[in-house]
Amino acid sequence: MKLKPKYFDDFHVGDCFETEPNFISKDEIIDFASKYDPQTFHLDEDAAKNGPFGRLTSSGFMTLGKSFTQIFNTNVFNGSSMGAWGLDELRWTKPVYPGDTLKTQVEVLEKKLSSKNPIKGTVRLKQTVFNQNEDVVMTWISNSMIKVKV
Amino acid sequence: MKLKPKYFDDFHVGDCFETEPNFISKDEIIDFASKYDPQTFHLDEDAAKNGPFGRLTSSGFMTLGKSFTQIFNTNVFNGSSMGAWGLDELRWTKPVYPGDTLKTQVEVLEKKLSSKNPIKGTVRLKQTVFNQNEDVVMTWISNSMIKVKV
Repeated sequence: MKLKPKYFDDFHVGDCFETEPNFISKDEIIDFASKYDPQTFHLDEDAAKNGPFGRLTSSGFMTLGKSFTQIFNTNVFNGSSMGAWGLDELRWTKPVYPGDTLKTQVEVLEKKLSSKNPIKGTVRLKQTVFNQNEDVVMTWISNSMIKVKV
Repeated sequence: MKLKPKYFDDFHVGDCFETEPNFISKDEIIDFASKYDPQTFHLDEDAAKNGPFGRLTSSGFMTLGKSFTQIFNTNVFNGSSMGAWGLDELRWTKPVYPGDTLKTQVEVLEKKLSSKNPIKGTVRLKQTVFNQNEDVVMTWISNSMIKVKV
């Protein structure tokens, strides 16, 4: 589901939108972990049986990248994103397992025009990531720099 | 530089340690971006010239995964990590470019034994990531679950 690209002017506090779902595979979990989070419970199915979750789980950093990419793929930032300056209050609330299907809901929390350079502003977004059982597996807040419409 | 693995008991507020440095390559930036952050300024050298940083930059999510892996590779969490429940106040303070070399300094901010399950506790760590010019490129706080020594 592609959305219309949004500029700073188009974001309104309280607005919500949702991404398409994405499948999480065992191979992707292991590949990501080998490069960016080599803890045994993200890397090795057998060793994960004795780990804190009793089985293989996705790196929380991978879940974060997947969630961001879902949002990006809605098209909402197409041509307007200038990157982000930070994240706040990221919480991993339930493990993500191979075979899960995740989707992200986004809510506009706040917006603030840059006082230094008013061609852009910060849009503060709250993300809630659900699995196929509608359990919340992660929440996170992003502070994105978005161009003003010209 | 391998450190002695630390259990919950071994972390003390105010303690600091530092990781080995790591090189950031153009190929890795593009490969990561293609999967987890497909914004043109992380994905395409030519398009990035017209982007917010004037050249190709690392996805902040990749910088985060690299920083975590540096810490993991010190050995400090070896056998004691039970994952993390969240991150706070992540800030991307300067862009990370192909060819940069990053290292992470870690400071113990706080520790709290679990009241529900006192075989583990939260250790709150502040990470500061530097490039080869000693510029701070990222800071982040992690809330890690660490086993108590048995």
